[in-house]
Amino acid sequence: MGLVIVYTGNGKGKTTAALGQTLRALGHGWRVCFLQFIKGDRDTGEARFARKVSDLLDFHTLGRGFVLPGENPEKDREAARLAWEKAKEAILSGSYRLVVLDELTYLFKYNFLDIGEALDVFRQRPPGIHLLITGRGAPEELIQAADLVTQMEELKHPLASGIKAQEGIEF
Amino acid sequence: MGLVIVYTGNGKGKTTAALGQTLRALGHGWRVCFLQFIKGDRDTGEARFARKVSDLLDFHTLGRGFVLPGENPEKDREAARLAWEKAKEAILSGSYRLVVLDELTYLFKYNFLDIGEALDVFRQRPPGIHLLITGRGAPEELIQAADLVTQMEELKHPLASGIKAQEGIEF
Repeated sequence: MGLVIVYTGNGKGKTTAALGQTLRALGHGWRVCFLQFIKGDRDTGEARFARKVSDLLDFHTLGRGFVLPGENPEKDREAARLAWEKAKEAILSGSYRLVVLDELTYLFKYNFLDIGEALDVFRQRPPGIHLLITGRGAPEELIQAADLVTQMEELKHPLASGIKAQEGIEF
Repeated sequence: MGLVIVYTGNGKGKTTAALGQTLRALGHGWRVCFLQFIKGDRDTGEARFARKVSDLLDFHTLGRGFVLPGENPEKDREAARLAWEKAKEAILSGSYRLVVLDELTYLFKYNFLDIGEALDVFRQRPPGIHLLITGRGAPEELIQAADLVTQMEELKHPLASGIKAQEGIEF
């Protein structure tokens, strides 16, 4: 049975856990599609890693890598819609055992995507396909529909004590 | 600067996030040592994955893969001590940019290892080495000493609704 997994909350670890889920799936020889809805152009460890295992892992940074809200909301909306179309295709294709929708929750927050529309697509996926959604403020309907939800709470963060984001840790 | 990162709490995602941190580090070409203190003999996705990238990733399941408390506490204690010696060596060697101590917290819980002794070793590590500790119930002294702490709270878990642990997801 394919699960819907949600990692939400304000703490560090959501995207990181999605990457861990990806590593575990790759270990089993699964094909994985990892879609990043928000992250920017930086050449992250995860992007570099993906290039090394591109036979099993499709990794895409979608949209404009925007930080929201952007200066041009109409362009952002358009980019978000295109990104969602790509995600829909990956989910429904049956080509991937695991599809990660990293930071998808921001599309709900900015009303670029309707939660009902997303859940419809989730329900239509072929059997056995797992979905993993990350991002702060997961809407209640998503939590209701999910099988596994972890809330990551920040108890302590180095950025708060003035330590800069570091290669290999934050990205 | 090397960070001490702690993922604790009752929710799913702690070991998973540690694996994600490992994936990111490998993407940057770092050498990583991932030590599992509790997990059993099962051939997990992470263990399979580790064999594919064994040039960069040393992955070990230590001790007896025990579920605690075991039937023979003295043997468990001895296994835990040997596991900790291995961890100490990895931390102090300087051979790894990231050392993961997965489920180390159980050693504190069962008094197999003193938190003060562990923190001493952490402080003696060469500069730039990151440590990542996972497990429920991280002791207060560890949280105090850490740079980044996320508490993973279970909002919903499929095992609670009778869905069995699945290959590729839980292991």
